[in-house]
Amino acid sequence: MKEIRIGLIGFGTVGQGLANALLEQKERLLEKTGTAFVLATVADIALQTLPGEFSATKLVNNAEDIFNDPSIDIVVELIGGMEPARTFLLKAIESGKHVVTANKALLSVHGWEIFKAATEHNVEVGFEASVGGGIPVIKALKEGLVANKINFIKGIVNGTANYILSQMSDHGTPFQEVLKEAQELGFAEADPTYDVEGIDTAHKLAILMTIAYGLNVQLDDISVEGISSIEPIDIDFAKKFGYRIKLLAISRNHGDHVEARVHPTMVPEDHMLATINGAYNGIQFQGDTVGDVLLYGQGAGMMPTGSAVAADVVDIGRNIIFDCVNRVPPLAYLSENIGKPTITPMEQLICPFYFRVTALDQPGVLSTITGIFGKHGISIKSMMQQERDVNEPVYIVFRTHRATEDAVEKAINDIDNLDVCTAPTVKIRLLNPE
Amino acid sequence: MKEIRIGLIGFGTVGQGLANALLEQKERLLEKTGTAFVLATVADIALQTLPGEFSATKLVNNAEDIFNDPSIDIVVELIGGMEPARTFLLKAIESGKHVVTANKALLSVHGWEIFKAATEHNVEVGFEASVGGGIPVIKALKEGLVANKINFIKGIVNGTANYILSQMSDHGTPFQEVLKEAQELGFAEADPTYDVEGIDTAHKLAILMTIAYGLNVQLDDISVEGISSIEPIDIDFAKKFGYRIKLLAISRNHGDHVEARVHPTMVPEDHMLATINGAYNGIQFQGDTVGDVLLYGQGAGMMPTGSAVAADVVDIGRNIIFDCVNRVPPLAYLSENIGKPTITPMEQLICPFYFRVTALDQPGVLSTITGIFGKHGISIKSMMQQERDVNEPVYIVFRTHRATEDAVEKAINDIDNLDVCTAPTVKIRLLNPE
Repeated sequence: MKEIRIGLIGFGTVGQGLANALLEQKERLLEKTGTAFVLATVADIALQTLPGEFSATKLVNNAEDIFNDPSIDIVVELIGGMEPARTFLLKAIESGKHVVTANKALLSVHGWEIFKAATEHNVEVGFEASVGGGIPVIKALKEGLVANKINFIKGIVNGTANYILSQMSDHGTPFQEVLKEAQELGFAEADPTYDVEGIDTAHKLAILMTIAYGLNVQLDDISVEGISSIEPIDIDFAKKFGYRIKLLAISRNHGDHVEARVHPTMVPEDHMLATINGAYNGIQFQGDTVGDVLLYGQGAGMMPTGSAVAADVVDIGRNIIFDCVNRVPPLAYLSENIGKPTITPMEQLICPFYFRVTALDQPGVLSTITGIFGKHGISIKSMMQQERDVNEPVYIVFRTHRATEDAVEKAINDIDNLDVCTAPTVKIRLLNPE
Repeated sequence: MKEIRIGLIGFGTVGQGLANALLEQKERLLEKTGTAFVLATVADIALQTLPGEFSATKLVNNAEDIFNDPSIDIVVELIGGMEPARTFLLKAIESGKHVVTANKALLSVHGWEIFKAATEHNVEVGFEASVGGGIPVIKALKEGLVANKINFIKGIVNGTANYILSQMSDHGTPFQEVLKEAQELGFAEADPTYDVEGIDTAHKLAILMTIAYGLNVQLDDISVEGISSIEPIDIDFAKKFGYRIKLLAISRNHGDHVEARVHPTMVPEDHMLATINGAYNGIQFQGDTVGDVLLYGQGAGMMPTGSAVAADVVDIGRNIIFDCVNRVPPLAYLSENIGKPTITPMEQLICPFYFRVTALDQPGVLSTITGIFGKHGISIKSMMQQERDVNEPVYIVFRTHRATEDAVEKAINDIDNLDVCTAPTVKIRLLNPE
């Protein structure tokens, strides 16, 4: 019987997910591949023993023991973070091991170095689990949609942020309160910065853009805004306009330049992305051949992520058995054909906008504000004004036609400088209609 | 430069889609694979010339010219139907050609013969385009979800039926009228039987079940009901209960037996499948490792289907170049591990039901009907009675808790035998909650 031996670094949530998946699916994988996928060694500095069901697996405290073991075919890195994950992956590659990782933060910053080393040593890099948890989105993009120019990517790829926005939307609870609940329930981490500030979403967008376009997109290329400043009142107004607020990763391929942005976005309520709630992920592509495709599933969690890591392990295992390593280039395009991106400057972005202006309820205010919009060439599509108590400032909300970010910034600056405006104007971008 | 040469049989809608895709994506495919994918020959009995942009492609009127051309690597069959498609595929395989087809009807009836021949001749069979048009659902199931026992499959896989039901739902138009419009608009074929009677959906379910479970499921194994008897009044009642009526392919894996059914189904309006409208397809899987995954996109059409056929061509091309033919078994499982299915008898099916009883508005009728349900162990969840003119029969609609098909058939028989019932009771199954 053929055998593929796996060395796993990190026996945390996802590591256990992989271990469980390989154990539970052992017979099924044998029926599909004729190959035994064996978890040979686990390296984890914090563990004294492995659970009883993994008695055939060796536990070591030093990842070097995996790199130095010539029987290990594939090294799976599931410790996350920058270091020592980066060093471990590079050492594994230098030892001639194929590698699998779910580490989107690392890939979006040091990916180029890792993929270059892998090419030099003719080993594979699997990273299906880095985006969309269990959803086979990387494989779909690299292989299923191979005969497509990808025109755009729109995705909900952070379950924590989506859970928080869904809770805020369902119950009208403020952000901080929902975040605290989510942390108590284990849906948000103690330090939620990466999730709620959009950084994790940007990591994933960088990976998707790279393989979609054949461009070496990195975290720094992406304009990022999180959801911590979203208020229930804006979620309510969005609903009144027929929209849901979602944290989206968005990229549009303009050919000679590409948009790369992560921000809260008002999505029409009948759009499929608006219906993706809780901790689920959904990623939409538009290809010039295929049209719209959307993939949906659990974006995180022990077993869903374990499913994706296991799929990478099996994929690479097949290539080892059939001696066809890197039959699909790791980043979809041959490395010599991957270029540098030209990112659309944010001030040139064109989309419809939502504004919430806070102003004193005085005669002429509306005329002044709409005059400012007009001066900057921004055309109003609809407007609402909320009734408030006497002498309190009112909210005036606007939904615009498509406008440039540049014009919008100037208009907001003018509006916020008015004496009658008592708080900064809130701006939320709308999903561009396609 | 490496080259993969393709012989295409059938230059109809999908054939032109493939030809266009290979032409338009030529540079992109080269950047991704280092290989030129060349449409070498087209065989079509009805054509005198090919459009000008395909001047480098040879046109023949006899498919034999493709089988006998040693320079052809991959034969793509896109003529559809049983014969001569079956003979062409077998001859291509016997000539040592890899084959790609979108022919779900053929595969669901003669698939076993074709896959057996391909195994014997060590060639590949690509059939991504046979289910879900451009959606990479076959690849997702075979590779992306490889480490999963698939617990269920639920899919909207026929765009024509979904378009008709969407139109009936949006405008309250009767089936025959919408069908006629759809035919005029080109959304339905002149003979719409396969689409509206659920047969095409069953073809696709047979393919999905085979690769999901490793069981040789054929068309005959599947219980099929179409949408031609759905009336606008049932769509209205469904809405009042909070449901949409969709033609679903449904299979549940019970381990020792598997459900295999196609029928109109009431889907809760907040379920993603309820939101898939028009000619779009959506396929949901539940895997024991990954949980729920849903894939969405265009289920038909020249370019979407061309995208899927091209993906198969590239996939097989890579395997030719890397000399790793059948690194993934065509039916996901190694052929020696594919068994015969035990299909759950329909009478043992358990799900919630909707009934519309047509009865004279007389004292005691409701008590008699509910008594019959009670006698057969069917528990009512909710009920509505529509007001009608005096002396006209009324509709009494029921939504039940989960009941067996067997009990339901007996109850309906008893009800329809009542003197007060003036028309056969309409029964629609509800999607099982998971």
